[in-house]
Amino acid sequence: MKYILSEKKEGIATLILSLGKVNALNLEMLEEMHKVLEILKDDDEIKAVILTGQGKFFSFGFDIPDFLSLPREVFRQFLDKFTFLYAYIYDYPKATVAALNGHAVAGGCILAMACDYRLMVTGKAKIALNEVTFGASLFAGCIAILKNLVGQRTAEKILFSGAMFSAEEALNMGLIDRVSSEETIVHDAHKVAQEFAARHSPAFSSIKKLVHNIDIPEFGPLERKAIDKFIDIWYSEKTMKNLKQIKIHA
Amino acid sequence: MKYILSEKKEGIATLILSLGKVNALNLEMLEEMHKVLEILKDDDEIKAVILTGQGKFFSFGFDIPDFLSLPREVFRQFLDKFTFLYAYIYDYPKATVAALNGHAVAGGCILAMACDYRLMVTGKAKIALNEVTFGASLFAGCIAILKNLVGQRTAEKILFSGAMFSAEEALNMGLIDRVSSEETIVHDAHKVAQEFAARHSPAFSSIKKLVHNIDIPEFGPLERKAIDKFIDIWYSEKTMKNLKQIKIHA
Amino acid sequence: MKYILSEKKEGIATLILSLGKVNALNLEMLEEMHKVLEILKDDDEIKAVILTGQGKFFSFGFDIPDFLSLPREVFRQFLDKFTFLYAYIYDYPKATVAALNGHAVAGGCILAMACDYRLMVTGKAKIALNEVTFGASLFAGCIAILKNLVGQRTAEKILFSGAMFSAEEALNMGLIDRVSSEETIVHDAHKVAQEFAARHSPAFSSIKKLVHNIDIPEFGPLERKAIDKFIDIWYSEKTMKNLKQIKIHA
Repeated sequence: MKYILSEKKEGIATLILSLGKVNALNLEMLEEMHKVLEILKDDDEIKAVILTGQGKFFSFGFDIPDFLSLPREVFRQFLDKFTFLYAYIYDYPKATVAALNGHAVAGGCILAMACDYRLMVTGKAKIALNEVTFGASLFAGCIAILKNLVGQRTAEKILFSGAMFSAEEALNMGLIDRVSSEETIVHDAHKVAQEFAARHSPAFSSIKKLVHNIDIPEFGPLERKAIDKFIDIWYSEKTMKNLKQIKIHA
Repeated sequence: MKYILSEKKEGIATLILSLGKVNALNLEMLEEMHKVLEILKDDDEIKAVILTGQGKFFSFGFDIPDFLSLPREVFRQFLDKFTFLYAYIYDYPKATVAALNGHAVAGGCILAMACDYRLMVTGKAKIALNEVTFGASLFAGCIAILKNLVGQRTAEKILFSGAMFSAEEALNMGLIDRVSSEETIVHDAHKVAQEFAARHSPAFSSIKKLVHNIDIPEFGPLERKAIDKFIDIWYSEKTMKNLKQIKIHA
Repeated sequence: MKYILSEKKEGIATLILSLGKVNALNLEMLEEMHKVLEILKDDDEIKAVILTGQGKFFSFGFDIPDFLSLPREVFRQFLDKFTFLYAYIYDYPKATVAALNGHAVAGGCILAMACDYRLMVTGKAKIALNEVTFGASLFAGCIAILKNLVGQRTAEKILFSGAMFSAEEALNMGLIDRVSSEETIVHDAHKVAQEFAARHSPAFSSIKKLVHNIDIPEFGPLERKAIDKFIDIWYSEKTMKNLKQIKIHA
């Protein structure tokens, strides 16, 4: 694996996003993450999975500078994989814990949202779905997941403002479940994962499936429509101009 | 326009309900509102719409005294238009802000609920879905919108009690978003509308559609059934008796 | 009636679960409850129904010791009746109030959740959906009802922990609506039921149906799938071992 480091300890697997300084998401990384999760699903020794990032970022989202030159159809392959992957994580039969060691923005925030529990470091780190500020749309499934986490109205406030939230603000809104510190987040995440791991596995998986209740085939056409719209807005003149400025600052 | 006054200022359109003392809703007013909103939708200079009322009321709901003599089929035409209109406002691609300058009751509350943001004057003004107290049913779409605003349990408390709430109580329940004063509500609403207007329009519209996610065709048969039931209860002996007493007091 | 005592007073019917020390649920009791509710539905003098338990328990859930020797198909009949009954109570056209006089656990908690209002005694009594702790799954309908009561995230916390909550904790989470005392709960429940009874009945029923909006035919296949899964996990070696230990302690 090139972009996903993985460790196992006491029945818990930890996956570490590892791509450059900000752990930006690209197709290869998502494919690796999918592959590791597939293997861990069938690994009877593993009861829970922690998702975290290397360095100072969890993930700053899509690898925008790299994506600017992509033809629409290649970009669509990435979006198909991304929307597949967050639904896959949300439906994962084992417990998943996101340890947000730093910024979790846009696509990074979405991967964290798909987990069963989120810890986040206090301090400079921010969490956001800031698409509306630079002119991108979003996806049907991740919005359904967000509404499950924080409720409809808070979801609208997060989405319509595109604001960057501190760990404390995110906790207040229900976007994360616990504030942790840089020193303790690895340990804290491990403890949470072990609590999940102690539960009766088939009962946990079955109840998780029932309470999540986002039926993937039902989401199929809705999600495809959302992806179409996402691509249209992404390649619009105004958004491309904004995205290129992100390139300059990166 | 006879019942809807409209103004434009700095990219924001303001629609003012203007019918008698309480801005009661009738078919002509709803048709006018629909027509103005259609025009504003295609007006590239307008980025957001404010909905407010003239005088001391936002709207006290259906024009009951006027409706008592209506044949069922004419009343149904009004209900069809009303249920169409709140879904239309909820799905409106531009931002909508309700400035509740006074009482927003029953149908008046429902129009306010369909907007993206609600400010309400502190003081005597009340907001309520009081149908259960005088014996009217409600509609599928507006209840779905209410549940989106305040969640299922608070929705039940509002609906099952039929209670009249102050701006402060409504804020606590999430039924409104900000308490304002008579002196500042016009200014405050304008500021909120401008914040919405500053966002990337196609991204905002697309995300709003995804997060609202009330599929109109899906609501079709449910809403028709709700309207049938509404009419049955409305024309029942007991409710008609209650409605006639409202006529006497009006 | 053998397991359901019933009383009528001032337009309110009270049903009292009465089976052994813990009011454990079995098929006969559920059939009796269904029968009494059917009769009360058509009784014009009755405007609301209170559900409570005899002695120190509301209900400790399924009659596990008795169920251990049941063939799968007989157990399935019980589950069919149980899932039918909570949906029936949730859809009941008259107001229903649960007076939790003691522990309301698993199946006992689910019956309480299906009512329109829950009071619970302060003190030792606990409320829980503790299935995950001994290795049972749950049902689609009762999870939908739980999500309606407390929202998605709190539902997940209740379900994934399987924790036992005091009345005060349950109130905080929205799982109950009022904390009462042993001395006053009968009186308090009666007062709540009378407030419901005072409302315009057809309007109340119609609005309750619209706001609950759990479409039973839609739940059919989902619920059948959930029951299949419930049975598979229930009869697994690990869960049977846990259940037999419950037998020993009972």
